[in-house]
Amino acid sequence: MPDYRFALDLKVRDYECDMQGIVNNAVYLNYLEHCRHEFLLAAGIDFNRLARERIYLVVVRAELDYKAPLRGGDAFWVGLNLERVSPLRFVFLQDIYRRNDARLALAARTTGTAINSKGRPFLPPELAPLFIPAGKPA
Amino acid sequence: MPDYRFALDLKVRDYECDMQGIVNNAVYLNYLEHCRHEFLLAAGIDFNRLARERIYLVVVRAELDYKAPLRGGDAFWVGLNLERVSPLRFVFLQDIYRRNDARLALAARTTGTAINSKGRPFLPPELAPLFIPAGKPA
Amino acid sequence: MPDYRFALDLKVRDYECDMQGIVNNAVYLNYLEHCRHEFLLAAGIDFNRLARERIYLVVVRAELDYKAPLRGGDAFWVGLNLERVSPLRFVFLQDIYRRNDARLALAARTTGTAINSKGRPFLPPELAPLFIPAGKPA
Amino acid sequence: MPDYRFALDLKVRDYECDMQGIVNNAVYLNYLEHCRHEFLLAAGIDFNRLARERIYLVVVRAELDYKAPLRGGDAFWVGLNLERVSPLRFVFLQDIYRRNDARLALAARTTGTAINSKGRPFLPPELAPLFIPAGKPA
Repeated sequence: MPDYRFALDLKVRDYECDMQGIVNNAVYLNYLEHCRHEFLLAAGIDFNRLARERIYLVVVRAELDYKAPLRGGDAFWVGLNLERVSPLRFVFLQDIYRRNDARLALAARTTGTAINSKGRPFLPPELAPLFIPAGKPA
Repeated sequence: MPDYRFALDLKVRDYECDMQGIVNNAVYLNYLEHCRHEFLLAAGIDFNRLARERIYLVVVRAELDYKAPLRGGDAFWVGLNLERVSPLRFVFLQDIYRRNDARLALAARTTGTAINSKGRPFLPPELAPLFIPAGKPA
Repeated sequence: MPDYRFALDLKVRDYECDMQGIVNNAVYLNYLEHCRHEFLLAAGIDFNRLARERIYLVVVRAELDYKAPLRGGDAFWVGLNLERVSPLRFVFLQDIYRRNDARLALAARTTGTAINSKGRPFLPPELAPLFIPAGKPA
Repeated sequence: MPDYRFALDLKVRDYECDMQGIVNNAVYLNYLEHCRHEFLLAAGIDFNRLARERIYLVVVRAELDYKAPLRGGDAFWVGLNLERVSPLRFVFLQDIYRRNDARLALAARTTGTAINSKGRPFLPPELAPLFIPAGKPA
């Protein structure tokens, strides 16, 4: 298991499960987004405030590997890492693990960017510190 | 504020908000259901297990008073009380309060019953103790 | 069956069903909202445009009677009527019927109002014609 | 634009939009799933019936390229193609186009498989004809 910069504990809610009794595929994107926003918030970046200022963090690509299902009531956690892949693009690497057996449920790679109200790429200055690796001189 | 038998702490997730920037009306039913299932679980009643045994707890009526909106990132809690209104019907009284100003966001009254795999009313025996008021001899 | 001013044909999508194999209670509020917005749009009132102009149509109360479940793949329709109950409050009466057996699945009564960006009650002028009963002189 | 074996017309529902006024990333997976199930149904394969028989069609990988946002009220369509990539794995290629400007909103590649109630790979016989390319001798 890799080290993660941020981790979030969650629990499956029954309404998130479909008729197969497992969490629906789409719901994992909710978990991943919520974890990213909590990570940003912990770093002082409020997605809601940015949206009100018409600065939009948007997903341009997502790759999801579904490894093992989550079921109603399952406790799980999301681990998160972040990489800058170009001046205006960053990649969140996120993995979801089940608590009961420590098994990897989902591995995800989400590429994001930021745009302003005119739809032009725009990286808010407060995001810059996120890309300085911990433990290295800035 | 009334006393509650059970309370659950939650936080708004940004994807639960709509274009008005507030939690969508339908999402409150998710919160209420999740709180009911957590309450039942704390009492030893697993909604998932019952569903697999084809005993279904179903909602027959819901009344919702939307008092104040929840917004992205808002912390809130759900208080729950339970009343038996007939041999086969029970009512969950649930209120949602915002943490930042203690304001009532939603007051809900949800009537439920239980049915078996043939769609016939059937109250699982493990539910009976729920209806014995705390502090009174059984 | 009452006459309806507006009707909308829909079909259950499988992801809307929960582990009981039936449409989750909360999802009916999605159907009802979508039907209201389609009704408003047909009357020239665009919920999205209003939201951008910071005029918000909000639900203050909902009463829902769940009569029969919808299942994956079920075709259904929503019938809608509208009543003004006070200068600033209106009630949508909406019923959902299954197509296969014409059975009533849900009866709902949703009270709404409109507020401006300061949270004050404000009925947009374009809503007024909605409350003139059809077939009566204006 | 490629040719598609199957296409489905849809329209954004306002509750599917988030505080940015655009369809939330996770909702596209709902659209894609619904389109796949409609495609299967048109070919005589009922996802619901399979689930009741404990044959599960599951997603093992999804790749999503978000090209342009959908907004409240937008009409769009989903085009679908299908490829068998191994004896037990198949790939759905799905693209979403906005109706108003014919622009590509999303390109998705979803890898699926089928498992039985024991979690073992199992391709239901009725799926086999899906993989015979149209216009070629079987």
